[in-house]
Amino acid sequence: MAEGKPKYVLSYFNVKALAEPIRLLLSYGNIDFEDRRISKEDWPKFKASMPNGQMPVLQIGNKTTFQHLAICRYLGKQFGLAGSNDWEAFEIDMAVDTITDLRTKAVVVFYEPNESIKETKYVQLLSETIPNILKKLEEMAAVNKGHMALGKLTWADFLLAGLIDYMNLICRQDLTANCPNLKAAINSVTSLPASKAWNAKAPKTDM
Amino acid sequence: MAEGKPKYVLSYFNVKALAEPIRLLLSYGNIDFEDRRISKEDWPKFKASMPNGQMPVLQIGNKTTFQHLAICRYLGKQFGLAGSNDWEAFEIDMAVDTITDLRTKAVVVFYEPNESIKETKYVQLLSETIPNILKKLEEMAAVNKGHMALGKLTWADFLLAGLIDYMNLICRQDLTANCPNLKAAINSVTSLPASKAWNAKAPKTDM
Repeated sequence: MAEGKPKYVLSYFNVKALAEPIRLLLSYGNIDFEDRRISKEDWPKFKASMPNGQMPVLQIGNKTTFQHLAICRYLGKQFGLAGSNDWEAFEIDMAVDTITDLRTKAVVVFYEPNESIKETKYVQLLSETIPNILKKLEEMAAVNKGHMALGKLTWADFLLAGLIDYMNLICRQDLTANCPNLKAAINSVTSLPASKAWNAKAPKTDM
Repeated sequence: MAEGKPKYVLSYFNVKALAEPIRLLLSYGNIDFEDRRISKEDWPKFKASMPNGQMPVLQIGNKTTFQHLAICRYLGKQFGLAGSNDWEAFEIDMAVDTITDLRTKAVVVFYEPNESIKETKYVQLLSETIPNILKKLEEMAAVNKGHMALGKLTWADFLLAGLIDYMNLICRQDLTANCPNLKAAINSVTSLPASKAWNAKAPKTDM
């Protein structure tokens, strides 16, 4: 680590989920970060020390940062992936919040502890909620020629690419199966040399 | 409307909820906007014309914008309420995403159609989820001397102040009852002359 550069430590569980967009962005930015993975068994020991009792948490030098979207937006700015003016940043944010809509609608059903309620809720999720938001996301990606915003690579593409395995799991489908433009947006990130290098060395996890 | 200035049209239901932070921000920015309120009866006629089939939608000149957080962040930038550098914007975003966590956790229970499931879920929401996030938000507001971030007025304060009636309803409590610093953050917005002028002329609604 060069002098003067802050040390980056990312804390999360041993999964991709909310941390993977951050890991992909840090890799893209050529940031040598510590990828600290906390096991489910150890989590109770760490929970109280985390802001909001949640992860991901990204330590940047002496600053403790949290909330995956806020972290991704900040990193996006540092690496030239956040648009070049307020309108462009706005367009990225609209895409990001729509991706988040899909995730938050699905995640609450995925983590429903009552199996009967869970299956009932998946019916509506799969027949209505997911197709509606997915249609909009695919339209956005089509307008933007295989990206989520601005017709070029932005941190919204990194968010989607990082989350997609997790989103596919909680949505019980390959979300890109009939969405070639969303697939292209994801590929625009995963095909980057930095992403390939990261994926080659990253622990293999299902989500 | 002066020549050259874009026309602002905000579309939402006849409630505060997700649109009120936008209305307060537009008022603060001295923007003469059309406050278009669509009745529940008329909504099916309009739904297909809205991005994502959702509101709020803010028309800015010939641009159609959506997602309340993206809109608030953009307006915050226009009105000098978004911090003066990337770190400051980051701190605001962390507060905003934590407010959003509280809202999204509660709203899914509030709109649960099955009364029995709903009441079961409110038990955990009221005993655990809400107190945990509320504690964090009050700590943030204490550190920031009665604001949500940066120790001064930002669009995060407008978000909280605009959402609070809706949040109190879905959280089944006065969230500020034991949170003097959150109350101060809200007051920092509602006590502004522009907010007072807006509230004096705004339709009266419960949430």
